[in-house]
Parts: sequence; C-alpha cells; structure tokens
Amino acid sequence: MRAAIYGGPHSIELGDRPDPVVAAPTDAVVRVVLGCVCGSDLWYFRGESPHALGPIGHEFIGVVDGVGAEVRGVAAGDLVVAPFTFSDGTCAHCRAGWPSNCAAGGSFGNHGIDGGQGEAVRVPFADSTLVHVPGSGHSDETLRSLVTLSDVMCTGHHAAVSADVTQGDVVAVVGDGAVGLCAVIAARRLGASRIISLSRNPSRQQLARSFGATDIIAERGDEATDAVLELTNGVGVDAALECVGTGQSMATAFAIARPGSVVGAIGAPHGVEVPIDTVIFRNIGLRGGVAPVRRYIPELLDDVLEGRINPGRVFDFETDLEGIAQAYAAMDERRAVKSLVRVGTL
Amino acid sequence: MRAAIYGGPHSIELGDRPDPVVAAPTDAVVRVVLGCVCGSDLWYFRGESPHALGPIGHEFIGVVDGVGAEVRGVAAGDLVVAPFTFSDGTCAHCRAGWPSNCAAGGSFGNHGIDGGQGEAVRVPFADSTLVHVPGSGHSDETLRSLVTLSDVMCTGHHAAVSADVTQGDVVAVVGDGAVGLCAVIAARRLGASRIISLSRNPSRQQLARSFGATDIIAERGDEATDAVLELTNGVGVDAALECVGTGQSMATAFAIARPGSVVGAIGAPHGVEVPIDTVIFRNIGLRGGVAPVRRYIPELLDDVLEGRINPGRVFDFETDLEGIAQAYAAMDERRAVKSLVRVGTL
Repeated sequence: MRAAIYGGPHSIELGDRPDPVVAAPTDAVVRVVLGCVCGSDLWYFRGESPHALGPIGHEFIGVVDGVGAEVRGVAAGDLVVAPFTFSDGTCAHCRAGWPSNCAAGGSFGNHGIDGGQGEAVRVPFADSTLVHVPGSGHSDETLRSLVTLSDVMCTGHHAAVSADVTQGDVVAVVGDGAVGLCAVIAARRLGASRIISLSRNPSRQQLARSFGATDIIAERGDEATDAVLELTNGVGVDAALECVGTGQSMATAFAIARPGSVVGAIGAPHGVEVPIDTVIFRNIGLRGGVAPVRRYIPELLDDVLEGRINPGRVFDFETDLEGIAQAYAAMDERRAVKSLVRVGTL
Repeated sequence: MRAAIYGGPHSIELGDRPDPVVAAPTDAVVRVVLGCVCGSDLWYFRGESPHALGPIGHEFIGVVDGVGAEVRGVAAGDLVVAPFTFSDGTCAHCRAGWPSNCAAGGSFGNHGIDGGQGEAVRVPFADSTLVHVPGSGHSDETLRSLVTLSDVMCTGHHAAVSADVTQGDVVAVVGDGAVGLCAVIAARRLGASRIISLSRNPSRQQLARSFGATDIIAERGDEATDAVLELTNGVGVDAALECVGTGQSMATAFAIARPGSVVGAIGAPHGVEVPIDTVIFRNIGLRGGVAPVRRYIPELLDDVLEGRINPGRVFDFETDLEGIAQAYAAMDERRAVKSLVRVGTL
C-alpha cells in the first residue's frame, strides 16, 4: 500500500508499506478515509523531537476492512474513528479512564506502526480502541469533524476538562493552533460565559470568534498578561488553557490564571518550566497531558453528528496522499492551521 | 509586651514589642494562649529564605482582648483560632474560597506584623479572619490540637484535598514532618483505604501509624519509588502528597503517582523542578500551595472538638516564650517534630 514515510527532518515522502493484515484475534484492519497532519507532527518534521523513521500520522477515520476472531464491537464495513493511541481497555490505567496511558498501548504512526497518513492500518485491541460511527451517508463536513475526534478536538476538550471549565467560567485559551481553536469549542460547550483567545493571526482570530471566543488578545508575553488582567478586573481567569507547549505560553497561562484555578495544558512541552512559586504561593494548579481520547470520543460524537460542534472547520488546507509533503509544508510555514489528507473513499 | 524577635539567620530572641491596640474598626486584639514553630520558620531561621527582621510566628490560638466597633463575629473573652493569614472576606479571591490569597491580606509574624510567638496580636479583618471556638473548659489536649488548625493540620488537609483524596484511595505521603503527619490524618479522614508514609525516623513512623498510615517506606529516591510501585502492583498511588518542598520529594511524588492522578503539594519550594514531561506524558497533575486555612478551619473544628482527630500529637517539644530559642533549635536539629510554645493562659 501507499503511505507517507518519515525519512528524517524535513523529509516526508510517499512510499510503499506492506498491506496490513489481521495478526492477532483482537486486531482490525482499517482502510483510511481521512487522515490529517497534527501540530505535534511538526516537532519531528522540524527535527525538534525524536521520531522513528517510517510510517506516520496518528489521526484517522476509516472503514473496517477485516477483523480478528475475537473482535465483537466493530465489523467489516463499519465507519470508525481511531483515537491516536490504541489501548487494551483492561489494564489499570484504561480501567481508571486513562487509555492514552495504557500499559499495553501505543501510538499510531510511530515505531513502525502504520498510521493515518497511509492507506490502511492494523489496529490492535480493536474493540477497546476504535469507536463505531452510527448512521450512514454522512456529509463531507461531518466526516471532516469526525477525524478531529482522533486527536485535536479531544485534546482541546482535555485542556478544558483538565482546567475544570464549568458553567459561567471566564476562560482564556493560550494558542491559536488547531488545538487552541478546538479548546475554544470545548470551553463553550462546557458552558464558559467568556472565552478570551490569545491570537495574533486575523484569520485564526475570526475562526476563534466563530467557535465562541468573545474576546481576542493579540499581545504576547507581559502585555498579554496585562490585557487579560485588565479584562478580568485584575482577578485573572477561572481557567487558562495552555495549547502551545512553549516556555512563554506556559508562563502566560500561569500569569493570567486566578488563584485556586488550574492551568489545563496539552502542548507537547519544549523548553517549559513550571513556575513552582506560582503554583504554591498563588494556588494555581496544572493538569493535562496526552488526552484520553478513547474516553472522550463517545461523549463528543453526538455533538459532531448532530452538528452542534463543527471542529472540522480547523482544516484550511487539503490534499491527498500524493500531496503529503505539501500538507506538512503548509503547516510548517504557517500557511495552514491544519491540513486534511484525503486518503480513500467511504 | 514580650515577643520572639527574628534578628537574622540563627538568631531568635525574646524581646519587647509595643502592646497591640485596636487600630481599625474591623480589628481585634488577641491575647495569645498557644503558639508554635512551623517547619517553614526553619527556612528563614537557617537563612535559606528571606524574612523581615522583627516579630515572628504565624500560628496561634488565643483569647480576644478587645474588638473594633464594626466587629460582630467575635467578642472579648472568646477563644479563637487564627489562620496564619488574615483576609478581608470580600475580595474576589476570598469570595472564591481562597482567603490565603486575599488581595488585602497578609501573614502574621512577618513584615512587622505581630505573630503567635508573642503575647498579643492585632488581627485585621477580625470577622473574616478569626474562628470562634465554641464551648469552654477545653482540655489541654484539645487546645494543642486547636492550634494546629492555624496552619499545619489545615495544610496537611490541603495536600489531601488538592490531590483529590477520596473514599478507598491508595495515598502516599512524602515527608514525615508535622505537615506530612497531618496529611496522614487528613487522608484517613477523607476515606483513604491505604496510606503509605515515606519516613525514615522510627518515632515519626510510629506517629504516622497511629494517625492511620498502613505502610511505611523507609527508602528514599529511586528505591522509595520502586518500593511504592511494588506495593501498588506497578500502578502507582491514587494520590501522592508532597509535604517537604525539595526537588527530591517532588520527583518522588511524581514518580509514584499513577496516570490521571494529582500530586498535592504544600511544601514551600526550594530547588523544586516540576517534571513537565511526567505531567504531560503521564497525565499527572499538580495542585496545592498556601492552604486556604480560613476556609478549612470550620470543617475541621468539630472533628478536633469531638476528638475524632488529634493533630496536637505532632507536638513533641514544648516550652514557653523564654524558651523560644530552644523551640527552634529542637526542630532545627530534628530532635523535635514540632515545638509548642505556651504563651498565656485561658
């Protein structure tokens, strides 16, 4: 089959991979319909994080092509969403609701495991990994939103849940990447009354507003902090969502959070120092991480299917597998918020 | 009046201070009955943290001597517990339940404000700061426990609440100082089914057991981590309470916490680095800080008055104001867990 292959920093090419097959009775093979490029893919693309050479792409939806003898929850022909990690559903971490920390799990599109930027994927633990999408004849708009449930929408949701966003809260979202934009959707969905988006890019500002942001702060660093504090009468926000992963974004999130609140952080950390004095002396907590996507998909799925949320609108570039290098380049050069990759048909 | 005076590192002496008077209509003057020395007092005593020269001691109970014209909640003759910070009860942070972050507040026994290691204290915002202790004729045992509500017991409780300790949890307490021991009490009170105390000191181990610890780990560093993981089938604990404030104790707390849990930290941080990769990749949060004591006292008071908890047992050295230097020395030299200072009579 054809699949995008990571050959090292700045090298993404279409190549050949063996066709995946059902190897264990709990496996499924999924034919990929839509994949996409994640902001976290840029870290290794740019050589800033290690990543195994080989197949890539951890976000996808697709159609089940075949299942092992023990698979009960999905069957050939089913449309499914794959979380970006597979998980056995039975280990202590899975049972506690943390499937992305599964003791037997792993990530798609890394360490030689096929991913969503290829034509097909062998999915271990199919029953506890894949989520069946009910219904048929879904619109392209719906499909685009469904693929965000693989990672980016659930990750934005994780930032909001981690920061304990509740009805009536004033929320700030640090970062206007696809996850930050999804965090705006999530904060609104959880009832935030005011959502302050920190964004300097006019088109992203507009998207943030359409997702529910009520205020835009274009400043950065201390000026951003001052602006948020001014908007909140010097108190700070009820929940600060850190959706970048840099030292500056974390510092800003802690500086604008009110005492007793929690910074919800989901950015893969690069050069981040947690201001421990702020944690202790201002009682500002920190939660977040690799989103427990498999837990979140079911609760977000209906909202996508019924059009109450439309996170697929974060895709502003699209191509097919032949264009995979352009999909990365568009995001690397910040021409695109997020690139959709059309791989197969329903 | 007589009061302990901080003269710089390793210098604590009894000296003279002006008698406190009601200066604002919301003030009370409290005659101190019991004060004590806090583990955090040792940081400046040892020259490891800055502290204003002058009166010290932020924990005390006492009897109200006089109140300003606007004070309604306490009256002359009342036995009261003072939180270690005063707070106006009306600012945004107080209203949100974070009185120790009061915008108009401050700490007793610092910056020239009298404290619990002296004969009397002017208490600003008396109504929203002091907590009246009902009843009369309290035993010395009860009084000793009441003074722990000023700080140490509420701080241990804050570690447990911050880590979201709930019924049936497996909890580890890193640190066997007075706060760590109170955290054991708090964890048990909140329903922990198993409490692992990390302690190398036999008498503290014994006290921890009497407070509810079910397991003792005497190892430190990686060996402590291995031991806790072995006790928990490799999963880690549901809640790790960091009650020291050093880099090693924080690292241990994060290493033994299970994915999805929260490290509850209350130690004044010295050389602490938060392992951000653990936060993100293992979904382990961090909460805690300067305890909102004024919020906690009412909920813990009944348990003290009715003898359900007995945190006063952390005091294993006692003296009067004349012996204040010995009270510090006993703790500095680790001869004592915590020093009680008998200042006045009921």
